[in-house]
Amino acid sequence: MFYLIGLGLGDATDITVKGLRAVKSCSRVYLEAYTSVLTGGKEALEEFYGRELIVADRDLVEQQADQILKDAHVTDVAFLVVGDPFGATTHSDLVLRAVNAGIPYKVIHNASIMNAVGCCGLQLYRFGETVSLVFWTDTWRPESFYDRICKNREAGQHTLCLLDIKVKEQSEENMMRGKKIYEPPRFMTVAQAADQLVQIVQRRRAEGETLGLTEDTLCVGLARLGADDQVVRVATLQQLVSCDLGGPLHSLVITGQLHPLEVDMLQLSAEADVMKNLHVLDGSTYWS
Amino acid sequence: MFYLIGLGLGDATDITVKGLRAVKSCSRVYLEAYTSVLTGGKEALEEFYGRELIVADRDLVEQQADQILKDAHVTDVAFLVVGDPFGATTHSDLVLRAVNAGIPYKVIHNASIMNAVGCCGLQLYRFGETVSLVFWTDTWRPESFYDRICKNREAGQHTLCLLDIKVKEQSEENMMRGKKIYEPPRFMTVAQAADQLVQIVQRRRAEGETLGLTEDTLCVGLARLGADDQVVRVATLQQLVSCDLGGPLHSLVITGQLHPLEVDMLQLSAEADVMKNLHVLDGSTYWS
Repeated sequence: MFYLIGLGLGDATDITVKGLRAVKSCSRVYLEAYTSVLTGGKEALEEFYGRELIVADRDLVEQQADQILKDAHVTDVAFLVVGDPFGATTHSDLVLRAVNAGIPYKVIHNASIMNAVGCCGLQLYRFGETVSLVFWTDTWRPESFYDRICKNREAGQHTLCLLDIKVKEQSEENMMRGKKIYEPPRFMTVAQAADQLVQIVQRRRAEGETLGLTEDTLCVGLARLGADDQVVRVATLQQLVSCDLGGPLHSLVITGQLHPLEVDMLQLSAEADVMKNLHVLDGSTYWS
Repeated sequence: MFYLIGLGLGDATDITVKGLRAVKSCSRVYLEAYTSVLTGGKEALEEFYGRELIVADRDLVEQQADQILKDAHVTDVAFLVVGDPFGATTHSDLVLRAVNAGIPYKVIHNASIMNAVGCCGLQLYRFGETVSLVFWTDTWRPESFYDRICKNREAGQHTLCLLDIKVKEQSEENMMRGKKIYEPPRFMTVAQAADQLVQIVQRRRAEGETLGLTEDTLCVGLARLGADDQVVRVATLQQLVSCDLGGPLHSLVITGQLHPLEVDMLQLSAEADVMKNLHVLDGSTYWS
């Protein structure tokens, strides 16, 4: 059996009892280590599970998937994913390979940012499409996520922004020279994400574009969701540019139309005075 | 401390280790029993947790919340929710009451249908707003969810449809007579949901409306997600009208624009021939 097991968010104890039992019963246990990370890292997980973990980086999962699935029709193999196994899009490929090889598979679900984000008080069913923000480079500054956020806001919907993670990346120079030297891991912060968005807003304003999002738009910065030291910060986009929410992982939510109950919940984590600009229109509450 | 603990989907062992530890440490443990249900029910949970559970029906949660929170500033109280605590919208109110009463609270997350739906192979970030389908009555046949699905499809997005649950409901007659006699629980099936949608499609076609959704639209029926006997059925909306996916809970997904990887994943659970009408347009795959 090939088990895809979600580890949830937070720490080692966020695995489900069902997941832990499966981990203990498997002959090989892989830890997917490039789409997300857990506080404490591999060592904390190994100690809690009482099992050695094989780190599965992007290379192993995307280039050598057969190695992961080897013998899984006669022995049990576990593939651990922070959050839920289907939060990241890359794991469908593993499932398809298993099925094509005649290997039965089982998914053990857990919380992911896609549903845990509800703890900030915004209703999950009011979220539109999720977007991803990537680190800009000197030559590559994609903006498509901005337009998606505006479309969601036009429809009154909130937007969850997943923030870039760079783990085991080579510099352009080392890649060209074929040197397997890796850069230190980088995790995009809420402040960096907010800064990118403000830059886009300013550029588009200068071009005379009608803005679906401004520096004053109400946002929610999230850090280490599910961990004991999680932070939820409700502030304007501009305020978040200078925020420090501590270590990774971070996520950002751009609010859409707000229900009064959502306003009350956001108030619990809001910067002083930030909620005072809310206006009530058409029986619903909007952020100006 | 007031703990809101997600039980995940499936059975008693889907609770997280962190959640189980909290349950065992609390002096009172409530089980929310009206927005969702777990296979096996209360008894299976009590046996696995080694704790007696107090069933919290809608009345208790919405009318007598203070009773649940009583003494939670000096003792630990747990409130268990199938799925994730913030999957259902009603639990924000409990958090606000706790905060207003000076009671610290903690959320222990878990999988919910909102993220576990990814196991069917549709990418979570491609979902638009979630809709709810309610049981129609002779005099109340709301259709707003249909328009929301069409809007999502226009934007290429998939739609998760949450299906109605009626637990501990009084008949109109018993309610008027003030008799606390409750109807047997009802859980909307995928077939019932598909039938409602087909009725709306037919009515609107008769009125000459341009349809954003037809009997041939590709859908995914889901039953008992996360349980050992979960069912995923990929079929047209019309085909789902006559499907029998077994016991509760059911959910329905209306697909939007499909990525080739999504098509491959759906194929694993598809009715014979159902995928043959997929056409490739603009580099993406659409359902006609």
